[in-house]
Amino acid sequence: MTKELVFGHKNPDTDAIVAAKAYSYLQNQLGKETEAVALGEPNEETKFVLAYFDEPAPRVVDNARPEVEAVMLVDHNEEQQSIADIKEVTVTNVVDHHRIANFATAAPLYYHAEPVGCTSTIIYGEFLAHGIEIPAKLAGLMLSAIISDTLLFKSPTTTAKDEVAAQALAKLAGVDLESYGLEMLKAGTNLASKTEEELITADAKSFDMGGKTVRVDQVNTVDLAEVFAREEALRQAITAQSKAEGYDLFLLMVTNILDSNTRLLVIGEPQEMVEKAFDKKLVDGKMDLPGVVSRKKQIVPQLEAAFNA
Amino acid sequence: MTKELVFGHKNPDTDAIVAAKAYSYLQNQLGKETEAVALGEPNEETKFVLAYFDEPAPRVVDNARPEVEAVMLVDHNEEQQSIADIKEVTVTNVVDHHRIANFATAAPLYYHAEPVGCTSTIIYGEFLAHGIEIPAKLAGLMLSAIISDTLLFKSPTTTAKDEVAAQALAKLAGVDLESYGLEMLKAGTNLASKTEEELITADAKSFDMGGKTVRVDQVNTVDLAEVFAREEALRQAITAQSKAEGYDLFLLMVTNILDSNTRLLVIGEPQEMVEKAFDKKLVDGKMDLPGVVSRKKQIVPQLEAAFNA
Repeated sequence: MTKELVFGHKNPDTDAIVAAKAYSYLQNQLGKETEAVALGEPNEETKFVLAYFDEPAPRVVDNARPEVEAVMLVDHNEEQQSIADIKEVTVTNVVDHHRIANFATAAPLYYHAEPVGCTSTIIYGEFLAHGIEIPAKLAGLMLSAIISDTLLFKSPTTTAKDEVAAQALAKLAGVDLESYGLEMLKAGTNLASKTEEELITADAKSFDMGGKTVRVDQVNTVDLAEVFAREEALRQAITAQSKAEGYDLFLLMVTNILDSNTRLLVIGEPQEMVEKAFDKKLVDGKMDLPGVVSRKKQIVPQLEAAFNA
Repeated sequence: MTKELVFGHKNPDTDAIVAAKAYSYLQNQLGKETEAVALGEPNEETKFVLAYFDEPAPRVVDNARPEVEAVMLVDHNEEQQSIADIKEVTVTNVVDHHRIANFATAAPLYYHAEPVGCTSTIIYGEFLAHGIEIPAKLAGLMLSAIISDTLLFKSPTTTAKDEVAAQALAKLAGVDLESYGLEMLKAGTNLASKTEEELITADAKSFDMGGKTVRVDQVNTVDLAEVFAREEALRQAITAQSKAEGYDLFLLMVTNILDSNTRLLVIGEPQEMVEKAFDKKLVDGKMDLPGVVSRKKQIVPQLEAAFNA
């Protein structure tokens, strides 16, 4: 038996941290030797969640190879979102709810993806299938991941499976889903204390589209105006970071979690791909996308289609 | 509800045909509208299986797009092994037991892979999970696919799950596993009636390795000498086909299913990758690989490693 590390994507959100903890716990119950780790520090929301259920944050690692030869991925599969030395290790398991891209293995593996709102929903199903009990604290974490990814079931990525899992997990955790959910989401929108650099990094992911590196960051808020009061500083931070990291096109999604609308701020080229993707003109590098809250379902596929057209 | 096609890989073997029929049946029971089709005619073994259990061969198709917008893949995921217009359709479901490579989607999907010996074993598990009964004839087909892929459990790809599924399916189908299995495998080794072109095509798959197109074909036999009596004609057929199709390196695996040994015949370049992969010299373009029966587990990963080293 060789130990394996289990981790979610870079710039971890609540699901990336929680799904790693939950899947590692499940695998250990099934007889494997695994440790949940993270590719970054927990964000504000995740810190709130971990504190609420009195659970430690996973150890942060940069590379896998010094410790292990095999790893399990949760909540991601794309190479550029994964650990730095992903190509040097064997991926034995993946549990995910994203598209598959920039992912390849030399040998067969266990891969479980479902088009649901949250990885923790899929892992909840695996606990059921294996007849393994979920401890109350872990149930609270998994519930939080589902609330986070689905914005309390308002995101179009939400499925009946997510709602069923969340209801069951809330019961196991002993919390009121609605009131806890809103409290948790608001804890994640405390933006005033963050620098522009933090805002454009905390929940950002890179995508390779038509040979361009496209970066998409999402900031949740309860007040769009509060964020756009800092527009000039955000623009400067994005321009500097894009230059340093080689991003061609940067999309900042500022999402109002109360009314489920997003305002995009776009820096870099080709901007016309964004206009094509959403069939709408950018005005001063911005556009409003009513009803848009999901990067995965309402931004990335549309951009991908525009680049491939 | 839009209809979807379900199919296995090009040059279909028994699992590719059977898994499509089984998964389509399951999906239809779950309320989807699907049709199992095939990317080629059934081989000798599969014809024997379909006749034995009195089941029709799936309709053969070349393209998906004229009929449907979405498809489900079984027993493969790599683009070059799939339907010609795979890039024009949406892949909604994959059930597979191979490595993942040359596969990407624009949106999340259902993907269920396990490192077991046969796709039909995974689908058997899905029938169980959904509580759907497997009709006797379909059970016979799924049993046959497991026997075919695991060479009656002699292949190193065989797992305990394959054996458990096969035992249960044999009971449902009302056949004796051992005696039926040997009869079925022998039905697939009737090589005398086949042309060299047929022998090097029937169970061949293409792989992209280090920028080279590598073709690996497998012929099962109960008598190696019978096949190598035709070596010169096989060489000519491989050379002609490689030129016509653009294969850089062609490996013909001739596998004795009675003693589980393989003799390789290698045409094209770079031959040194084959020597590196198996740490053995080619003699006159040939090498014996005792105990080797699995392309997926004992040939492709080793070649891949040699190309990537």
